[in-house]
Amino acid sequence: MRIRDLGEFDLIERISGRVKLSSRVVKGIGDDAAVLSYKKDKYLLFTSDMLVEGRHFCRRSGGYLIGKKSLSVNVSDIAAMGGIPLSAVISLGVPGSLGLKYADELYRGIRAVAKRFKIDLVGGDTVSSEKIIINIALLGEVEKKNLVLRSGARKGDLVFLTGAIGGSSKGRHLGFTPRLKEARFLAKNFRVHSMIDVSDGLLADLGHILESSRVRGAVIHEDDIPVSKAAKDFNSAVIEGEDFELVFTVSRDEAKTLMQSWPFKTRLSRIGEVCRAKGLYLVRKTGKKAKVGPLGYTHF
Amino acid sequence: MRIRDLGEFDLIERISGRVKLSSRVVKGIGDDAAVLSYKKDKYLLFTSDMLVEGRHFCRRSGGYLIGKKSLSVNVSDIAAMGGIPLSAVISLGVPGSLGLKYADELYRGIRAVAKRFKIDLVGGDTVSSEKIIINIALLGEVEKKNLVLRSGARKGDLVFLTGAIGGSSKGRHLGFTPRLKEARFLAKNFRVHSMIDVSDGLLADLGHILESSRVRGAVIHEDDIPVSKAAKDFNSAVIEGEDFELVFTVSRDEAKTLMQSWPFKTRLSRIGEVCRAKGLYLVRKTGKKAKVGPLGYTHF
Repeated sequence: MRIRDLGEFDLIERISGRVKLSSRVVKGIGDDAAVLSYKKDKYLLFTSDMLVEGRHFCRRSGGYLIGKKSLSVNVSDIAAMGGIPLSAVISLGVPGSLGLKYADELYRGIRAVAKRFKIDLVGGDTVSSEKIIINIALLGEVEKKNLVLRSGARKGDLVFLTGAIGGSSKGRHLGFTPRLKEARFLAKNFRVHSMIDVSDGLLADLGHILESSRVRGAVIHEDDIPVSKAAKDFNSAVIEGEDFELVFTVSRDEAKTLMQSWPFKTRLSRIGEVCRAKGLYLVRKTGKKAKVGPLGYTHF
Repeated sequence: MRIRDLGEFDLIERISGRVKLSSRVVKGIGDDAAVLSYKKDKYLLFTSDMLVEGRHFCRRSGGYLIGKKSLSVNVSDIAAMGGIPLSAVISLGVPGSLGLKYADELYRGIRAVAKRFKIDLVGGDTVSSEKIIINIALLGEVEKKNLVLRSGARKGDLVFLTGAIGGSSKGRHLGFTPRLKEARFLAKNFRVHSMIDVSDGLLADLGHILESSRVRGAVIHEDDIPVSKAAKDFNSAVIEGEDFELVFTVSRDEAKTLMQSWPFKTRLSRIGEVCRAKGLYLVRKTGKKAKVGPLGYTHF
């Protein structure tokens, strides 16, 4: 049996399944970031993402945008927990033949994101590699009362989405802004039951929320889901991934206040609700309702 | 200009040179791990290492040993700061065609090291990649009073080395045990002025201590440096790297107590001293003294 027969999630479960964790770990593998004991009123958040040339970016996109993306994907993970980022360590694999100017552009991209979100770049490791590989590990923190996991969705919750989805393969995956200020606003002012960032695709990531929360299902409405102009069509937009928008659920009462007080230009859309029916359902513009699988980006 | 014209250290300096850090950072880029503010009496340590197939290991060495090495190199970094490891996140790049059994062996190796040193595996990211790539980011902690940096060596300090060096390319780089208990014993019981783990080679890493500490130089003695049986010869042993032994300096007074109280089977050797002469000098078995450059493993 080969890895591509399994897919990413089973592979991660193979690591986490048989491992005992100490009492320092509040939440291990299975959310956007690990949650660790830290201070009296705060948790430490810990996440890491690896980007590989040819898979997550093309060299011709330029070092600056690739550098930006490599740190932004991690910031998005910390945001989805309701936290703020603190410090990052960077491992960089590059061919010795790569132009120094290109490497400098990579760093310039990373530094731009670090500056914007006040992240300290505290460690670096560079190795020789045929393809460009960037791994960034990021620490963050969150007040205990503001921590948001994937696993708190409840029956009757309304499902929300920030921004618009789709078109990531047309370049949006390089230019996105992590929804940190939106996530912090939500975590600090509302009882957000569950949250995730859209990296594997809207359907897949909403599926992760449902599964982690052990709720039966949800219904979402095509009419209510904003699709980016860059997207090929609706169907590709909901499965493509790398949108790095936030999907979250709140109670119906909380939703009302939220809609009235949303202070950002970033669009906020109520796209559906957590319900009794088993599975994830999509109501088409025609009114037809169809069960949709946990479709999304397949990593292998 | 290409990256291979620069080498690793200049590349890392290019990141760190122009970056301002917040007051949360006690020590950023330039030591075995970053040192961050944490608790009243403790610092947080943060390090990350990337291993790439064909560069740091061959696939035929087997997943178990490669997995062990990937976490052990990080434990060695935390040890060199005087700390203990806490939690790790793993990013794994593997070809979809890789056998599942091989991936399981990788994890088994990582888990074996995690279990031995009581490390929580709290996060995982797997991506598709032609070559096997393993990046592990590791958090640790150290009591403020026990923190050891590279930068505290003083004139007149004696230089010590644990174990024997050389022969890493003959397989020792896969089977080593990080010197965690030795490092903790040193940090807790002695005023260790400076410490580093030997990853780039004894000469290069002792050079890092001298440079960080802004002392003029050191003299080491061929006669006093234990060389592993697997090593080709003395000359290759001092430059090969990936020994993961500890090099450290203490005052002459402290050295006496240390030699008398060393409780481990791991050999402890006094190999030289920090001195007034500028540069790193090696006294050969013949008695001849030669200046040796900052030779060591070149990453590009």
